[in-house]
Amino acid sequence: MSLNNLKKETTLYIRLNDKDNVATIVNPRGVKEGAAFFNGSRIQEFIPEGHKVALTDLDKDEAIVRYGEIIGYAAVSIKKGSWVKETLVRLPSPPKLDDLPIATRKLEEQPPLEGYTFEGYRNNNESAGIKNILGITTSVQCVVGVLDYAVAKIKQELLPKYSNVHDVVALNHNYGCGVAINAPESEIPIRTLQNMSTHPNFGGEVMVVGLGCEKLLPDRLIQADDKQLNILSLQDQKGFTKMIDAIMKMADQRLQKLNQRERVTCPVSDLVVGLQCGGSDAFSGVTANPAVGYAADLLVRAGATVMFSEVTEVRDAVHLLTPRAVNKEVGQALIDEMKWYDTYLQKGMADRSANPSPGNKKGGLVNVVEKSLGSIAKSGSSLITDVVAPGEKATKKGLIFAATPASDFVCGTLQLASGMHLQVFTTGRGTPYGLAMAPVIKVSTRNALKNQWDDLIDVNAGRIATGDATIEEVGWELFHFILDVASGRKQTWAEHWGIQNDLSLFNPAPIT
Amino acid sequence: MSLNNLKKETTLYIRLNDKDNVATIVNPRGVKEGAAFFNGSRIQEFIPEGHKVALTDLDKDEAIVRYGEIIGYAAVSIKKGSWVKETLVRLPSPPKLDDLPIATRKLEEQPPLEGYTFEGYRNNNESAGIKNILGITTSVQCVVGVLDYAVAKIKQELLPKYSNVHDVVALNHNYGCGVAINAPESEIPIRTLQNMSTHPNFGGEVMVVGLGCEKLLPDRLIQADDKQLNILSLQDQKGFTKMIDAIMKMADQRLQKLNQRERVTCPVSDLVVGLQCGGSDAFSGVTANPAVGYAADLLVRAGATVMFSEVTEVRDAVHLLTPRAVNKEVGQALIDEMKWYDTYLQKGMADRSANPSPGNKKGGLVNVVEKSLGSIAKSGSSLITDVVAPGEKATKKGLIFAATPASDFVCGTLQLASGMHLQVFTTGRGTPYGLAMAPVIKVSTRNALKNQWDDLIDVNAGRIATGDATIEEVGWELFHFILDVASGRKQTWAEHWGIQNDLSLFNPAPIT
Ligand SMILES: [Ca+2]
Ligand SMILES: [Ca+2]
Ligand SMILES: [Ca+2]
Ligand SMILES: [Ca+2]
Ligand SMILES: [Ca+2]
Repeated sequence: MSLNNLKKETTLYIRLNDKDNVATIVNPRGVKEGAAFFNGSRIQEFIPEGHKVALTDLDKDEAIVRYGEIIGYAAVSIKKGSWVKETLVRLPSPPKLDDLPIATRKLEEQPPLEGYTFEGYRNNNESAGIKNILGITTSVQCVVGVLDYAVAKIKQELLPKYSNVHDVVALNHNYGCGVAINAPESEIPIRTLQNMSTHPNFGGEVMVVGLGCEKLLPDRLIQADDKQLNILSLQDQKGFTKMIDAIMKMADQRLQKLNQRERVTCPVSDLVVGLQCGGSDAFSGVTANPAVGYAADLLVRAGATVMFSEVTEVRDAVHLLTPRAVNKEVGQALIDEMKWYDTYLQKGMADRSANPSPGNKKGGLVNVVEKSLGSIAKSGSSLITDVVAPGEKATKKGLIFAATPASDFVCGTLQLASGMHLQVFTTGRGTPYGLAMAPVIKVSTRNALKNQWDDLIDVNAGRIATGDATIEEVGWELFHFILDVASGRKQTWAEHWGIQNDLSLFNPAPIT
Repeated sequence: MSLNNLKKETTLYIRLNDKDNVATIVNPRGVKEGAAFFNGSRIQEFIPEGHKVALTDLDKDEAIVRYGEIIGYAAVSIKKGSWVKETLVRLPSPPKLDDLPIATRKLEEQPPLEGYTFEGYRNNNESAGIKNILGITTSVQCVVGVLDYAVAKIKQELLPKYSNVHDVVALNHNYGCGVAINAPESEIPIRTLQNMSTHPNFGGEVMVVGLGCEKLLPDRLIQADDKQLNILSLQDQKGFTKMIDAIMKMADQRLQKLNQRERVTCPVSDLVVGLQCGGSDAFSGVTANPAVGYAADLLVRAGATVMFSEVTEVRDAVHLLTPRAVNKEVGQALIDEMKWYDTYLQKGMADRSANPSPGNKKGGLVNVVEKSLGSIAKSGSSLITDVVAPGEKATKKGLIFAATPASDFVCGTLQLASGMHLQVFTTGRGTPYGLAMAPVIKVSTRNALKNQWDDLIDVNAGRIATGDATIEEVGWELFHFILDVASGRKQTWAEHWGIQNDLSLFNPAPIT
């Protein structure tokens, strides 16, 4: 990366790769026509912050290169110093999925990172949690109104008595009845709910509230031997007040047990970290995502499981990922997830041009190819050791691709089902996002966002663009912050304010 | 209907139509083998309450008739007095959609019902509301965590100052970003949100909280001239505390205005009532739904708009509905909605056998044909004056088919978008259901459910099965109760407890 940090009136820009023929404007207010560029050249027109400037004259149909990769083709000829804006860039075809190099990259084995631990909660099943939460699973959306009432009462009357318990969380969702439960793709929402009900941050204290006539039978959601002890069906209760009493009683028993738990030192190999981006801009791939990628490499070296996701933001960069698969099977599994999603979008007569969002575009991203190249920077440089389908539990250590949509809350919900303890979330435009079941660490791509949202952004990677920190420094800062949050020594801003966005299930099957 | 109300040890059963060769067992504990049947015959085996008994010997492949309609074919020969259970009934093909009688039924014009009114809130746009609620629309799921925090604070600090305002409701949903917003079927969730933001129970005080980079631009959600005054984008705010301050301030201005509103007498023609069933059983089509159908006829005669819905529960009885269409166009629109849904289910490799639910079956319903015949009883006997597609605003008076899935919360959300002021909800198995935006009147199909859920069921139609009330009596009771609830003179149990189930959007388009 070359950063020309001259005087303020000159053009500040970042070129990421020697092959690049465009660069990203860093000046917070953009650059004006006539501003000094390089070698005595001039900027041809106003270009906003985060948007691209042509480093050479580009002919019509010439490849536009960023990250050393083709992000599109010039729709018209573009002069050096001009704004390479969305309308001037033709979208290239996505990488063909049948001829990709798989497991070709020989990585130098990174030395393991020893001596790092976190203070977690040991679960009976040999997993660990980083929170001590009472999770209440629901088998059907019908019970949500009653359960919300009960949870408010639990929080007011019971939770204050149990100071070692962090929260009571109802797994409210819109599945369970009125769904095509036997459709092939219903396995996705069902396994998502199954895996969420035994989330490691719930300490093994399972509790399911059902209705009694739903299609998703409550006992499909738990593995416990004594299923009936852990399921409360509202149709068995004598009216509303008795429902509330029964839920309170069941919760109280579990809160008593959870309250006896204490943090113990756990190896980093017990940790499962999810990575996601939302509200991306052109700096995502320059600052926040590379720093997260660096931290991801550190976590992998320390033995953790790290999940990256978001199929639609990986699809156009998949040729850079298949070589990193640990073997042919994992590479093929990655390709299969891309194919599944291609078909899924096609069936709905949608295509990848639905991504990026208007905000992404305002932030300087011209298309999904550019967005994807920035997005995969989160994955760092480790080999990809496994691929899990949407909502499947991750069982391997190392860097894992957990297939999910890019939609922030659907991705978050599926990563939780895959066993995520906490999420690292990079944002350029800004998203005030939180999950009830797991801390969300928010990493900003720009200083301006951190300045504006000082009480929401946990780690500022914008300093990388201004030369005030290196990718390595922010990567290490994030690594330590992750261990601090996992240990309860530090809180994310989302935890501090209690921001808890709703879960959002991925259900590609029809409803009825 | 013939009800043999002899001594308790004898078989109590209901035969609905002279053509029926099966009847429904009414004995609360079912009937035992050897129990007295009719003409000296005997029950052949235990048959539970709500399940069907053969009135004659049925040959293999013989048509099984209930409601005077074929609900299936005998898979084996069945002896008179035997249990006609699910596994013995083969599902017939659904009615073919290309050769249905349309608008053939000449109804005797029912005399208008004059002199009935309700006390509502007159809106500027000449509609009326029955509640005085501050509705806060969201353009994207990202803002929900922050908005939930703000709404809790508004309810605690502001709402108590404005005693004429009933509630503050956030329209939280999982749409807005990470969706294929240009896919053809995205028009359904988008118009649903558009129509919800101007719901008549919100008194015209529009307020939209957005993020700033979402795909669903907030100004697509409101029609107001001064859009910018009514939209608050979180990315424009300086951090979390300022977001909360800004939402509180915007809410306070609108609460002041809403607080000045008072109820005025409105004609019943201003009223829009939605009908739905959930957790149906074999009595749904015998007690609750016919009583609701009677009330629906009264409402139509009094000038109201009455919507029935639930495509998958109408599909198998559509041949009984197309003749009631007011004209060819309306009949064809009804057929087109059925076709759309057939294709939608097919694409997801699901079919109508996904309905009924296990609870429906426990309640005695053998298949979707029987369920549908019971379900459409809610629609009464009026002509169908219009058909609206999912999420479209209803503009006509009279009986309207509002196409929705049968899923309770998806149906509820779409009926709200169509302008529903309140919903009448029939249930046999029991569903403790409530909506934040509109009262839900719960009607039980059986006395036992009313006894068990006395503090949840508003009207008990079970008395019809035991001969303690007629369909007409319960229909009139419901009609009066609807006007009382609309006028704020009476509360539903769901309002009393504050049961508010989450909205659930219908989005047949892919997510990204
Ligand atoms: Ca993203
Ligand atoms: Ca995302
Ligand atoms: Ca139903
Ligand atoms: Ca329903
Ligand atoms: Ca909620």
